[in-house]
Amino acid sequence: MLVNGKPYRTVWMERGDVKLINQPLLPHRFEIHTAHNHLETARAISDMIVRGAPAIGATAAYGMAQVVMAAPNGPGREAAIRAGYEVLRATRPTAQNLFHALDRIWGAVKNLPASEQAGAAVTGAETFAVEEIEACRRIGESGAALIEDGMRVLTHCNAGWLACVDWGTALSPIYVAHRAGRRVSVFADETRPRCQGANLTAWELAQEGVPVEIVADNAAGILMRRGEVQLVITGADRIAANGDTANKIGTYEKALIAQANGIPFYIAAPTSTFDAACPDGGAIPIEERSPDEVLYAYGLTDDGRPGRVRLAPAGARARNPAFDVTPAALIRGIITEYGIVPPTREAIGRLLAGARKG
Amino acid sequence: MLVNGKPYRTVWMERGDVKLINQPLLPHRFEIHTAHNHLETARAISDMIVRGAPAIGATAAYGMAQVVMAAPNGPGREAAIRAGYEVLRATRPTAQNLFHALDRIWGAVKNLPASEQAGAAVTGAETFAVEEIEACRRIGESGAALIEDGMRVLTHCNAGWLACVDWGTALSPIYVAHRAGRRVSVFADETRPRCQGANLTAWELAQEGVPVEIVADNAAGILMRRGEVQLVITGADRIAANGDTANKIGTYEKALIAQANGIPFYIAAPTSTFDAACPDGGAIPIEERSPDEVLYAYGLTDDGRPGRVRLAPAGARARNPAFDVTPAALIRGIITEYGIVPPTREAIGRLLAGARKG
Repeated sequence: MLVNGKPYRTVWMERGDVKLINQPLLPHRFEIHTAHNHLETARAISDMIVRGAPAIGATAAYGMAQVVMAAPNGPGREAAIRAGYEVLRATRPTAQNLFHALDRIWGAVKNLPASEQAGAAVTGAETFAVEEIEACRRIGESGAALIEDGMRVLTHCNAGWLACVDWGTALSPIYVAHRAGRRVSVFADETRPRCQGANLTAWELAQEGVPVEIVADNAAGILMRRGEVQLVITGADRIAANGDTANKIGTYEKALIAQANGIPFYIAAPTSTFDAACPDGGAIPIEERSPDEVLYAYGLTDDGRPGRVRLAPAGARARNPAFDVTPAALIRGIITEYGIVPPTREAIGRLLAGARKG
Repeated sequence: MLVNGKPYRTVWMERGDVKLINQPLLPHRFEIHTAHNHLETARAISDMIVRGAPAIGATAAYGMAQVVMAAPNGPGREAAIRAGYEVLRATRPTAQNLFHALDRIWGAVKNLPASEQAGAAVTGAETFAVEEIEACRRIGESGAALIEDGMRVLTHCNAGWLACVDWGTALSPIYVAHRAGRRVSVFADETRPRCQGANLTAWELAQEGVPVEIVADNAAGILMRRGEVQLVITGADRIAANGDTANKIGTYEKALIAQANGIPFYIAAPTSTFDAACPDGGAIPIEERSPDEVLYAYGLTDDGRPGRVRLAPAGARARNPAFDVTPAALIRGIITEYGIVPPTREAIGRLLAGARKG
């Protein structure tokens, strides 16, 4: 997608470095972050320089390529690769794509001669990223069929191209419909505590010329009740075998409101987001993040610098679960690169069996 | 209630001055604002030094007493009192309690000899404030029956004593249960966009020693689904004749989540909050406030000064409905100074008929 008129991806590799759009600086500053080795790449993931499950997956794939490139020849090689793998794996607990990407790169190189592993890992990571882009583009084509001319879509957090390598998941159908000339507008939940909706979704939609209005997370209820929203689409961090879906905190609430008001609620995610080994939402671990994210708000000060303000009294405590689980029963369908599937164990089983075949 | 161990009300009169807790400075600074005459009291209301309809009403009553005390003897007396009345009446456009309080003080003194009016006005204002306190205390006693030892209550926005003269509405049952020795803790929704939960609710509960944790508005869903909340209580801005309730934006969402998870959801409000002339929630006008409340967050900067940060990209637009309507069907009961009533037209009719009789 375009940034100030130039095409960008969220992550790519350049002469062994991993290059990332520095997302915490957005929307106030656009800057490229360079991770020179897998430790810096791991830090970029855990510090959330990159965020969004598919983008994390691609970043981890490139990081794994850095691990393989830097591993010493000789008897310590496999242990070094294993150690690098574990460092990358420990960066975030919830995103299925992270684990999937690491396993895929390691699986592609482990049986090769050492001399061929680095090249295969880099090629594997690049293939992984390109496949993510293609999956997102196809998600957009699947989902665009849901978007009629004049519709307003509500989305939560950022599941746009900034969360992926390109195109996005929840926003991809909107981009496809918009480019096809349909009038589509968006309510972006600001998505406290990190405000990815206000920061990122509003920014990337505006860059593409899609009309967008930010709303407080609390406002989704009245807007849906008033009939101002025709469709809700969010992304996913992990989808269990029965269709229960972990996504950014607050997603479950939006799904409940949509159901109560007869508005279709869809999840958009590539098949790499599904975790067939996870029977249902109760088995998905939920990351609890720093209370400071709730006690403060971060943004741009009036003198144009990044800053924060404390919302809470001194000594106040906060709880900060970063994700929640939306039960399958609240989800109308899951928009994937293989079409829209119902959130049932059977349909998901068939989808994943088909995806594995090709 | 206590502030730094000393008992306070939000507003009181001291040797002719109106004393107010300066609420825009909270929770970062505790300061008493002094209004030496009715003009300064009017300014304090319009500048929102005091907020919350019951607290505004009591402040206006004291302001009206200042008008009467300062009115000259002789032929210009009644015109001066009328003029002061009008100044106070023009401070806020919609607060019913404001008009009610002014009329009550003027009604109590206008037929008395001039020499007795000042004393009667001061006594009338004090009586008005004490009645507000007593109504809130009785709300607390009614609602405390719902709170069992060990419960965690979720509340939204600030419906505590800072919004009233003392005790509060939604928080009053919590204070009563806490003082009775029951262990009760609170999740305070931060309540974007103005963050009254993070600012005020967290502060006033902590001052009374009630354990409180702030949560992003988005987190209520997972916390209720996990069984971490046993009861939800919020305040109300207006209750229609059928029990539909307008309150701070986001209240409707919390009520939906509570219902989906089998958690009782209660409204706490004095009978003065009911609007018998309003047939249902559809007839309640919803104020739309400045987009800046959504585009920015306001708080304390790291160098200890009041400030703000911009969350959204330059040029972004926002929608900012300030209230929503919770349908009566989602409300388990309404906690009033006359007990807990079901949210039905019949029960509300009986309540208001009884309240009018006294």
